[in-house]
Amino acid sequence: MSPAAVRAGNLIREWMEDAGLRTWVDSLGNVHGRVEGRNASAEALLMGSHLDTVVDAGKFDGSLGIISVLAALKVLNINGKLGELSRPVEVIAFSDEEGVRFQSTFLGSAAVAGILPVSALKITDKSDVTIQDALKKNSIEITEENLLQLKYDPKSVWGYVEIHIEQGPVLEWVGYPLAVVKGIAGQTRLKVTMRGSQGHAGTVPMSMRHDPMASAAEAIVLLESLCKHPQDFLSFDGHCKSFSMESLSTSLVCTVGEISTWPSASNVIPGQVTFTVDLRTIDDMGREAVVYEFSNRMYQICDKRSVSCTIDHKHDADAVICDSELSSKLKSATYIGLKRMTGAAIEDEVPVLMSGAGHDAMALSHLTKVGMLFVRCRGGISHSPEEHVLDDDVWASGLAILAFIETQM
Amino acid sequence: MSPAAVRAGNLIREWMEDAGLRTWVDSLGNVHGRVEGRNASAEALLMGSHLDTVVDAGKFDGSLGIISVLAALKVLNINGKLGELSRPVEVIAFSDEEGVRFQSTFLGSAAVAGILPVSALKITDKSDVTIQDALKKNSIEITEENLLQLKYDPKSVWGYVEIHIEQGPVLEWVGYPLAVVKGIAGQTRLKVTMRGSQGHAGTVPMSMRHDPMASAAEAIVLLESLCKHPQDFLSFDGHCKSFSMESLSTSLVCTVGEISTWPSASNVIPGQVTFTVDLRTIDDMGREAVVYEFSNRMYQICDKRSVSCTIDHKHDADAVICDSELSSKLKSATYIGLKRMTGAAIEDEVPVLMSGAGHDAMALSHLTKVGMLFVRCRGGISHSPEEHVLDDDVWASGLAILAFIETQM
Repeated sequence: MSPAAVRAGNLIREWMEDAGLRTWVDSLGNVHGRVEGRNASAEALLMGSHLDTVVDAGKFDGSLGIISVLAALKVLNINGKLGELSRPVEVIAFSDEEGVRFQSTFLGSAAVAGILPVSALKITDKSDVTIQDALKKNSIEITEENLLQLKYDPKSVWGYVEIHIEQGPVLEWVGYPLAVVKGIAGQTRLKVTMRGSQGHAGTVPMSMRHDPMASAAEAIVLLESLCKHPQDFLSFDGHCKSFSMESLSTSLVCTVGEISTWPSASNVIPGQVTFTVDLRTIDDMGREAVVYEFSNRMYQICDKRSVSCTIDHKHDADAVICDSELSSKLKSATYIGLKRMTGAAIEDEVPVLMSGAGHDAMALSHLTKVGMLFVRCRGGISHSPEEHVLDDDVWASGLAILAFIETQM
Repeated sequence: MSPAAVRAGNLIREWMEDAGLRTWVDSLGNVHGRVEGRNASAEALLMGSHLDTVVDAGKFDGSLGIISVLAALKVLNINGKLGELSRPVEVIAFSDEEGVRFQSTFLGSAAVAGILPVSALKITDKSDVTIQDALKKNSIEITEENLLQLKYDPKSVWGYVEIHIEQGPVLEWVGYPLAVVKGIAGQTRLKVTMRGSQGHAGTVPMSMRHDPMASAAEAIVLLESLCKHPQDFLSFDGHCKSFSMESLSTSLVCTVGEISTWPSASNVIPGQVTFTVDLRTIDDMGREAVVYEFSNRMYQICDKRSVSCTIDHKHDADAVICDSELSSKLKSATYIGLKRMTGAAIEDEVPVLMSGAGHDAMALSHLTKVGMLFVRCRGGISHSPEEHVLDDDVWASGLAILAFIETQM
């Protein structure tokens, strides 16, 4: 809702109109562009991604998903085919997916999906400005009442499709421009605190230490092994019956991103160590089994070392599984798009990836079935100025989505 | 050199005079008290510890070593025996051992030992006040010339003996009030930096990661094993010939006190992890062998993970070995002191410990032979308000040092 965001919204709105769409901005700042096609009362296909971004994310994060769809619709418009669509197609540029200012992700898409609580309007930024006030400054009046009206009627919607850069290294590694997303990983975030006996680095013999740093190191090594080879840890008890070991072992990722010691002096055995664990997989039951196994084994490490160990669950979100029909259509459309581009049939199988990052499709999944396409990006680094996308891959994404939209004729 | 430090110095000076000593304050603020005994030209026995302390260190850190000696000398004075000493005895309350204000440890004792460079006078505190200026405020004029004059002539000194609280848990654990110190550990401080591939916690598969946090955890687990069981790591190559495996494995301690990740976000695989290593042992060759072995194995871990690894040597100090004659006399004196206290002969062997922490005796070892006695303290925690000493153990230290001084009659 900065001046730059307003300018971006206005520009997108112009491009939407240029593609033959009827446009409006809703009371959360989402920019909509819609064409009714042959049957205005049919369930609509929603497509889109987010308009906002984060510092150093590169120019394709979010925006590529809007631009590709608009480019495809513009082609249909130029060829006079927009009227032939069998159902309404609506592009939405969501206003706030990243949550940089208000620390609340999926603001725009959550409102459309009807899962944004009215209390969200009172969330404040660092300067104590509420979302409501920030919108007001841009001449957008939002009340609790019209927030509720933003929710789409599920009966009016057929599905939601989103294109997004992968923000990971897999497509670059396999050498393929696009992938169908099978789902968005569920996530558990833990904060682990270990407390031992603080002491002088020189005076406490190794055998008398209760060192939470050594304890944390052992737990982090364990976490990595467990997440690399869950089958070695989970296959001997009852856990593995309730989930697919294959989907778990191919999609499980675990990360320790933050760690700190207290009192944090080089000559003091820490009295306390805290670290974060971020654990994601497409398999919700598997995720629970891994968290359970990790917790148990970590408690054993702490017991063995007479270190106390606390695990706080900071966040749990279930996975979103993409709709198989939409995924199948996106896969075929990818073949067609790539064939149009290269002039030859593509022999390699279109990769099917899990999304480890969250996307607006997560919010939309509460409203309708969802499907996603990933576009290869360089370096595999999320949110970095180095992350960028080859021109050819931008073309490929546009051609694939054009082929997908053509299935709705 | 705070008002409290000046008051403490004045009080100690009064107590010194009360014990029959001739007193003076030198130009670094060290408080001296001396009795010549029968032969003023004989080599003097120096005894003492530091007058300053650190926040929350408890009232016995440093001061106990001064008070015990003064109490013993006062007993001799009351009994009219000071004149019977076969050599001069001089008690020194060193002015600045901890280096809290000027970040320079052993200021007072280094000057007496002649190892304080004249440039030290220009060291500044956080407010840019030099040591020279701080002393001037307390009416002490120090110049480069009279700093050099603070150095004692080695020929005028017989030895230095220091009593200090253990600041560790061993005496409490073995249930003994005093210990003879066999030496002060040498120390190596390292700063390890590991650099890998930063990435999104959700999008980079485990198999494609170059995670410096997992790498650091593996290195820290290795460090702990190596320091707990050096014989398992060093016994198969040539290292162990040059040092005693026993003295290494009983005195080696290793600590990771500080660790940090960059960029330090729970949903980002760190691009960089930095941690400190503090490694101490009485065996200098052994310490070098352990640092060499740890470095080699850490490079292997980093190679295996395609993570880059840098090891900075921040500090290396050799061990100080206490004089065997002084140690033997201190051991006998401990038996006599404890027997006087309890009225019965002590059957248990007096423990012999390594000091992992630094003491003024480290500086004095550059001037003369040194010996140390440790006094049991509760909790085994260095520098904590909880650290304190039983009344009986204070008595025991005074009686032991009295018996030691009596050997000089």
